[in-house]
Amino acid sequence: MAHVSRKTNSSNRLTSFRLGGRQASKLVEEEEQRPDLGFGTRFNDTKVRLLNKDGSFNVRHVNASFLAELNLFHRLIVMPWPKFFGMVILAFVLTNFIFAGVYSLLGYEHLMGIRGKSAWDLFWEAYFFSVQTLTTVGYGRISPVGFWASAFAALESLTGLLTFALATGLLYARFSRPTPRIRFSETAVFAPYLDVNAFMFRIVNERSNQLIDVEIDVTMSRLEPAADGSLARKYFNLTLERRKVAFFPTNWTLVHPITAESPLVGCTPEKLEESDTEFLIILHAVDDTFSQQVHLRYSYRYDEIRWGHKFVPMFNQAKRGMVVLDVEKLSETREAPLNL
Amino acid sequence: MAHVSRKTNSSNRLTSFRLGGRQASKLVEEEEQRPDLGFGTRFNDTKVRLLNKDGSFNVRHVNASFLAELNLFHRLIVMPWPKFFGMVILAFVLTNFIFAGVYSLLGYEHLMGIRGKSAWDLFWEAYFFSVQTLTTVGYGRISPVGFWASAFAALESLTGLLTFALATGLLYARFSRPTPRIRFSETAVFAPYLDVNAFMFRIVNERSNQLIDVEIDVTMSRLEPAADGSLARKYFNLTLERRKVAFFPTNWTLVHPITAESPLVGCTPEKLEESDTEFLIILHAVDDTFSQQVHLRYSYRYDEIRWGHKFVPMFNQAKRGMVVLDVEKLSETREAPLNL
Amino acid sequence: MAHVSRKTNSSNRLTSFRLGGRQASKLVEEEEQRPDLGFGTRFNDTKVRLLNKDGSFNVRHVNASFLAELNLFHRLIVMPWPKFFGMVILAFVLTNFIFAGVYSLLGYEHLMGIRGKSAWDLFWEAYFFSVQTLTTVGYGRISPVGFWASAFAALESLTGLLTFALATGLLYARFSRPTPRIRFSETAVFAPYLDVNAFMFRIVNERSNQLIDVEIDVTMSRLEPAADGSLARKYFNLTLERRKVAFFPTNWTLVHPITAESPLVGCTPEKLEESDTEFLIILHAVDDTFSQQVHLRYSYRYDEIRWGHKFVPMFNQAKRGMVVLDVEKLSETREAPLNL
Amino acid sequence: MAHVSRKTNSSNRLTSFRLGGRQASKLVEEEEQRPDLGFGTRFNDTKVRLLNKDGSFNVRHVNASFLAELNLFHRLIVMPWPKFFGMVILAFVLTNFIFAGVYSLLGYEHLMGIRGKSAWDLFWEAYFFSVQTLTTVGYGRISPVGFWASAFAALESLTGLLTFALATGLLYARFSRPTPRIRFSETAVFAPYLDVNAFMFRIVNERSNQLIDVEIDVTMSRLEPAADGSLARKYFNLTLERRKVAFFPTNWTLVHPITAESPLVGCTPEKLEESDTEFLIILHAVDDTFSQQVHLRYSYRYDEIRWGHKFVPMFNQAKRGMVVLDVEKLSETREAPLNL
Repeated sequence: MAHVSRKTNSSNRLTSFRLGGRQASKLVEEEEQRPDLGFGTRFNDTKVRLLNKDGSFNVRHVNASFLAELNLFHRLIVMPWPKFFGMVILAFVLTNFIFAGVYSLLGYEHLMGIRGKSAWDLFWEAYFFSVQTLTTVGYGRISPVGFWASAFAALESLTGLLTFALATGLLYARFSRPTPRIRFSETAVFAPYLDVNAFMFRIVNERSNQLIDVEIDVTMSRLEPAADGSLARKYFNLTLERRKVAFFPTNWTLVHPITAESPLVGCTPEKLEESDTEFLIILHAVDDTFSQQVHLRYSYRYDEIRWGHKFVPMFNQAKRGMVVLDVEKLSETREAPLNL
Repeated sequence: MAHVSRKTNSSNRLTSFRLGGRQASKLVEEEEQRPDLGFGTRFNDTKVRLLNKDGSFNVRHVNASFLAELNLFHRLIVMPWPKFFGMVILAFVLTNFIFAGVYSLLGYEHLMGIRGKSAWDLFWEAYFFSVQTLTTVGYGRISPVGFWASAFAALESLTGLLTFALATGLLYARFSRPTPRIRFSETAVFAPYLDVNAFMFRIVNERSNQLIDVEIDVTMSRLEPAADGSLARKYFNLTLERRKVAFFPTNWTLVHPITAESPLVGCTPEKLEESDTEFLIILHAVDDTFSQQVHLRYSYRYDEIRWGHKFVPMFNQAKRGMVVLDVEKLSETREAPLNL
Repeated sequence: MAHVSRKTNSSNRLTSFRLGGRQASKLVEEEEQRPDLGFGTRFNDTKVRLLNKDGSFNVRHVNASFLAELNLFHRLIVMPWPKFFGMVILAFVLTNFIFAGVYSLLGYEHLMGIRGKSAWDLFWEAYFFSVQTLTTVGYGRISPVGFWASAFAALESLTGLLTFALATGLLYARFSRPTPRIRFSETAVFAPYLDVNAFMFRIVNERSNQLIDVEIDVTMSRLEPAADGSLARKYFNLTLERRKVAFFPTNWTLVHPITAESPLVGCTPEKLEESDTEFLIILHAVDDTFSQQVHLRYSYRYDEIRWGHKFVPMFNQAKRGMVVLDVEKLSETREAPLNL
Repeated sequence: MAHVSRKTNSSNRLTSFRLGGRQASKLVEEEEQRPDLGFGTRFNDTKVRLLNKDGSFNVRHVNASFLAELNLFHRLIVMPWPKFFGMVILAFVLTNFIFAGVYSLLGYEHLMGIRGKSAWDLFWEAYFFSVQTLTTVGYGRISPVGFWASAFAALESLTGLLTFALATGLLYARFSRPTPRIRFSETAVFAPYLDVNAFMFRIVNERSNQLIDVEIDVTMSRLEPAADGSLARKYFNLTLERRKVAFFPTNWTLVHPITAESPLVGCTPEKLEESDTEFLIILHAVDDTFSQQVHLRYSYRYDEIRWGHKFVPMFNQAKRGMVVLDVEKLSETREAPLNL
């Protein structure tokens, strides 16, 4: 079996000159063959969810450098839209307060055309002059006179332009970011399948974007007793009846048949819970709209599995020559006795 | 033969630790080897076009969540240019009506410099003041006075800036989206080829963008009678005489020779129709301008095939040392008796 | 040897179910094994340069659809900078003439604040009002009054915003487009190499951008007499002593050793010319700055080769611990008698 | 084992038609098998750091063409933020000085509304008029009259728009550029590992961006005496106990076990120094936020290695069900006697 990837260009050339291959150390050889998805050793002996439903991990970094922790661009990209617009408006209002403050300190006489009887009125006139400068509207009813008022107005308009340039980039980045909306069935099932049983879950693409070249890998993680009696987390790849499709226009039921070779042979709900079993799913695909690679992580834990259930069909009657897929039925199952 | 892809990095490592490989269940093994492009089971027994000429599928999703169905960015990206500009102008006109309405409710006395005798005149003055604010032109003949008129003008100019930032991103996304214009011959043909016959179609790149590393896969789909007499859709990969080219400066005739191994051996026009045969084409390439991956889907159905025809050459006389390719001749064929 | 790529995901799965593999037809089998880079049949029997120095092909498409031929975005992206700025300024000047014409037709009385004695003066006032509207500067010394003047000013400012949005995208696309500047030596050489001779050329990265994972393929193309005495173009891959490097910080001499297996064995300058030999080079790499894939094509024809010459070193004395590479020496060669 | 990559599409097809494979020349064959990362021959016999800590190379190009050396976009993208903003502000101030100079040469009488007693005052009025034009604020207190003043103001506003369009693109490019912040442990270690010893270093992702499909290659470079007594630099790929992970949420210790096959067998600190040993690290990954490929280079030289030390754990007590990783402990080691 060949293990290859685009990224191994350089290394491949080199590895072909590696010596014999037989390792001196039996222990090293065993360690090299232990599957590992990249979770640290910390996860190896505790009962903890490895992967959250949103694809995030249960790890918190402390003492990272300030800038690395701030990671401003990343935050502005991934925060929800209401929060993003809230921050934009907040920044807009605050910036104008700061500049309005500067203009009022310089003296309102440097804002020609300003009108107002009270300090309050004058401040708001300065505030809206600031707005008109920051947004480069510049009606001109009020305009700066004198060096310092003009200089700060110049600074403010430059600030406005650059901030706005930044906002343009941020909005584009947020919109163009590849975020597939693949819905997973709420539960996985153990269902009868041909003459055996199978671990199954179902997915559907909620969006009108087409996904192509979709590939899925399922890894089972569970705690197993080691030689010394302690528990150690082990990982098993689950062979799927089909792990790649060229198109994904309808729903897709992923099936791991529990044959003699499956690590799930002889499994029971109790054993799954006892061993803190979690099914980790990695999905790679290409979004057809921009030919972008997309990635998705998901997981089912032992308590998100129905035994002896199978999924009901999602197709309605075809209308006007079109196949109709009812997305709401994604998680619907009905009882089906398992094969023995 | 190794089947590998960049996306299988993680899984590959794991799959190498899979157990023996002999499956306990004969049925499971058979199912695993059944080719499937990813069309749902619904398509398996009906006479329906799988793939439309524009690469879309005959599937409609219902009951998806509102936001997923809306999918605003995707729609704004893929809609035709006239519709896009229509929507931009509509949104522009409506937004200004809304703000003009607000200003007129606040009272025209808060718009300094406004001139007009009738309510109609005043409303249009307010409307164009709104335009000048939204676009940040801000001539200043009319300008807001008082807190609320100024505040709404501020809101409007911010709205204008953000909307415009969005429009910048949308225009860029629309323009930079990789949309190859490869024209397929209107019909495929069954033509004589060397000492056998072949299924052929022809493509040409309509654009001046160069495409490189072009790869094509052709899958035949047809209904076949199952053991119980019902019809079931099966998929067959068609071996091409050449499926990759490094460059694509001229035309390219794709050829599947009908040798003894071809699933098309012994085929007739009647059998094609009877079995609802469809030829599904998947094209992958790299657009040289931005080194972007591009993808294309196309299909020929049984009624889009000419028997005993072959394509005529597309080259004219060379002019000024240049080979001249007549794109209009792409679909031109002439009769050619098939080999027996 | 495995032939695999990311793009063959779907097909690979299917091809594994292909029948036996022995082809019924000997002729088909031979045709399948003929190397072909994707140049059309037209090039097969004529003496013509296949690939120009700039990577373009000697093919002209006629009768393509108008929009495909126009291909506006692509043109605006690839045209030289002076031409691009010329077109921007031209479009700017013309648009303002059009709008100035409209305003003068509507009557100068609708432009409040306009000043001028002659029609000439008034027209230019209208022209610069148009400029101030299109750019959204909007000083306001001149401002529109009345519905139609205001409406056209509104249209103009919207036009300005959208055009500018477009310009933003175009400028970004032009700048961010991956265009490696790899300089090839002006001539290739046939030089002595170890105990044999070799075909060599030399490249250097002119830019400060780092290129990584650089891969090069060299194909020789030449006319060979067929059985019936006619000439036919054939393609040969030239094995390189090294075809991939992980880094490319200095220069790189590409070497094809002319061993017994090389198609260049027994070659002479006369034979190269007679058979219209051309060496086609395809380079793939990753630009480190944006991790973008880049592609490059180049070619050496028989008259761009020096026999019995070898490249001189490009390194100067190291300065301040740095290795110094003299880019100007790239094409410098000196005589070196070939091995017999 | 198959070595394949997406980029070898075209070549693979061709290479399969290569002749036999046995090389005529023993010397050529040996040369083909010599590992080489792409450093030029210049590095082959000198004691010099190959790779700097920031991933740059110790090479300086001279005599490259002016434009290639300028490489403006690349520079503006990679320069630090303070320098970038400094240059923006400098360009802004200078451009306004130039235009203010032009306006003052044309005569202040062409700037209507200008106020000031001294030449100094008038110049600053012109200067801020220039600012208001370049930023398209255009208050209009001062506005150009006459052809030339208006024309230069038109030019200035167009300049402003285009420069700002450029700035938008630059800001976006800077922000969206994939720049992973993976921190490497300050030193590598030679530590006991199972029943042998190992070369180890440790990395952590400082950012909240998730990295997936992380792959690492380690190459050792050292000077070795050649047959004629001179020193020649050789490269060795170091086999890692694990070189790919699907996820990278915590820290990762890279381990090269020094078994009988390792080129590090029998190594001592003195030998490392003597042979100018350097460990070159290449990392490839995918940034999950935008599914971007990211690349990273790093190196440890012989004097950045601790012998008989091992890394201390980086995990603190879990808080609220979360694993807590202390980034500051990345480089912390403690003594551990090596296995014999």
